[in-house]
Amino acid sequence: MPDALKVALLGCGVVGSQVVRLLREQADDLTARIGVPLELAGVAVRRPNRHPDIPAELLTADAAALVARTDIDLVVEVVGGIEPVRTLLLSALRSGKSVVSANKALLAEDGATLYEAAAANGVDLYYEAAVAGAIPLLRPLRESLAGDRITRVMGIVNGTTNFILSRMDATGAGFDEALAEATALGYAEADPTADVDGFDAAAKAAILAGLAFHTRVTAADVYREGITSVSAADIASAKAMNCTVKLLAICERREQSVSVRVHPAMIPLTHPLAGVGDAFNAVFVDAEAAGSLMFYGRGAGGAPTASAVLGDLVAIARNRVNGGRGARESAYADLRVTPMGEVATRYHVALDVADRPGVLATVARAFADHGVSISTVRQEGRGESATLVLVTHSASDSALAATVAQISDMDFIRRAASVMRVEGLPAE
Amino acid sequence: MPDALKVALLGCGVVGSQVVRLLREQADDLTARIGVPLELAGVAVRRPNRHPDIPAELLTADAAALVARTDIDLVVEVVGGIEPVRTLLLSALRSGKSVVSANKALLAEDGATLYEAAAANGVDLYYEAAVAGAIPLLRPLRESLAGDRITRVMGIVNGTTNFILSRMDATGAGFDEALAEATALGYAEADPTADVDGFDAAAKAAILAGLAFHTRVTAADVYREGITSVSAADIASAKAMNCTVKLLAICERREQSVSVRVHPAMIPLTHPLAGVGDAFNAVFVDAEAAGSLMFYGRGAGGAPTASAVLGDLVAIARNRVNGGRGARESAYADLRVTPMGEVATRYHVALDVADRPGVLATVARAFADHGVSISTVRQEGRGESATLVLVTHSASDSALAATVAQISDMDFIRRAASVMRVEGLPAE
Repeated sequence: MPDALKVALLGCGVVGSQVVRLLREQADDLTARIGVPLELAGVAVRRPNRHPDIPAELLTADAAALVARTDIDLVVEVVGGIEPVRTLLLSALRSGKSVVSANKALLAEDGATLYEAAAANGVDLYYEAAVAGAIPLLRPLRESLAGDRITRVMGIVNGTTNFILSRMDATGAGFDEALAEATALGYAEADPTADVDGFDAAAKAAILAGLAFHTRVTAADVYREGITSVSAADIASAKAMNCTVKLLAICERREQSVSVRVHPAMIPLTHPLAGVGDAFNAVFVDAEAAGSLMFYGRGAGGAPTASAVLGDLVAIARNRVNGGRGARESAYADLRVTPMGEVATRYHVALDVADRPGVLATVARAFADHGVSISTVRQEGRGESATLVLVTHSASDSALAATVAQISDMDFIRRAASVMRVEGLPAE
Repeated sequence: MPDALKVALLGCGVVGSQVVRLLREQADDLTARIGVPLELAGVAVRRPNRHPDIPAELLTADAAALVARTDIDLVVEVVGGIEPVRTLLLSALRSGKSVVSANKALLAEDGATLYEAAAANGVDLYYEAAVAGAIPLLRPLRESLAGDRITRVMGIVNGTTNFILSRMDATGAGFDEALAEATALGYAEADPTADVDGFDAAAKAAILAGLAFHTRVTAADVYREGITSVSAADIASAKAMNCTVKLLAICERREQSVSVRVHPAMIPLTHPLAGVGDAFNAVFVDAEAAGSLMFYGRGAGGAPTASAVLGDLVAIARNRVNGGRGARESAYADLRVTPMGEVATRYHVALDVADRPGVLATVARAFADHGVSISTVRQEGRGESATLVLVTHSASDSALAATVAQISDMDFIRRAASVMRVEGLPAE
């Protein structure tokens, strides 16, 4: 047994500084749980002179040299982004170092390359912190449910957009106003694109789908709509049908394929995800034998994310001490990703129409022509400012799109249709 | 690598028959996930002629002989109870077989002996199914949160009592009536003692506390109150303060000790545990860095429990194939269990009093004399049928008991005080 396991930390921002704190404060407990001490042996940062809390002799701007050190056993990466991190982690894995990463973008773009390097070199690659922050989710999917057949994963996995949508729901604000509030409070970054356009959630959805269904899914496979076009009127429409709007990541197993998508959706207020507010995350997992499971907690933030990183660090350290290995990539199922056009959901469609006799009949005919069955219709307002609100039964994305395209050309339509998916309604 | 791993199953009731089904239906997936097939090599049951679905050549009434077979690699135990199971599992572990058990009673009474046998023989002992059925909970506590400091675990871990309390809340029924309904529907066993007297929940609490706090806790260490004395009046009192009554298992970390207890408690309707109905389980975990996490799902039933068993079976099989080992017992913290008298909670106290001038002053004085601070008081009714309802701030169990004992002797008290703990109120 080694005297100590030496840890290299790549990145020391909001999460990395909490990793350093926990390594220090919990040193005795970590030693007892692993069997040997963890020793922080180096910290790679862009500007070493900006980290007065870290002993100067540990700091370096040369991440490649740190990763190459032969005395390093374990590497923790909390930098983010694709390069140079991919090169650094491949170098670490190939030189026999186990890796913990919180890098959802890299894992969703090219996890397979990292996994293969880990397997080829007999080392571990763990990344619990990449999805849903502190919530133990990837380990349950990969290990606890390994004897079951997961059919669906659906959740709120982006705290920034959940904060914005929660504010829009609570105050009636529009998207721009709620985003400004999120930015002011530090919930949104200066450039919020990755969050509000759904890239962050799509990367997480790809990782979840890959683990849940034992197949490879990359971010590019994920159908993605952000929340920038969600309007105060959409939120009000949702309220009118006792719903709220959430940005959902949804991964579904079909017979010989999977569907993976991120988009805003109306969900009933009675659904447990409706009550998940602010920056919290929550994920439902449906499995054939287990039934429905829910996991809930903090999806971001320095300390919660560091908790997940440390859990993985203990795991790879225990494996190093005990001579074992964690689960490798499991992609044997090798399933096709269903094109979004084939994916069926329910829809909420609001049509601003001139209120003339025969309009509803014409609209209903268009839905029927495309095989889209209508569940409910209600009319709001009268005369020239009427709105028809329809909720469909489950229909394919392509059928709904064709229906809306046909209706859009009709002379009584006053404005482009407002369409939003609806999830979590009781079974039809 | 072996051609196949041979599995012995001890017990084939509600859970065991689902284990057999999943082993059969998911055989190809399990093989792909483990690397080699799992082969059901023997099933020990009391009456082999009662299991027409199992090939006769697999069935035996001689569990000891099955466990002793040298070709068996892995043992799954879903029998329950202390003996002869302890002897059988020790025999399995000592002969180099890894074990999956769903046996909360045995693990809570004598888990240490089993753990030591597993460690001494270099094999695994997993038991996710022993607590909260299908919900991945023990693995997250043991592995995902291994780098954090867990401060509290609080949850609903017994479905039978949760069903009964849910029915009492929904219908106004008394305990006996709700128990009869639970029995008729198959939610309660013919002898419901283990559930309604809290023994089942106490065993689970002991297991949770041991894992969460890295210390040994046995069922005998757990303070335990069941729900048999919860009355319709208690439920009504809870409703009057926007609460409901749940049987809670609560494990708390103190500086150099832990408290572990199972008892009914009022919780606010706004608390997430209040919405956990019928036979579902849900557990909150608070950790220093991770914050609050919640796990929710089916806590019992054949298929959900079998899902957890199969997850563990895949884990021990993977370890067998890869040469690794799962986490061993972690009891280094070696913490004292706090006597219940020192444990502080809030209390709801209902006193049937003769409504005379000075009664409230006298009662309030008694609370003050014992250092129990009163948060709210309200009086229900007037004259000879008045009830004083007090909710205290946090007070030790012994101080509250002494207060109630003193008040009981006062001449204006018409009936024994009704006392119930209150959990989950906003911080004082």
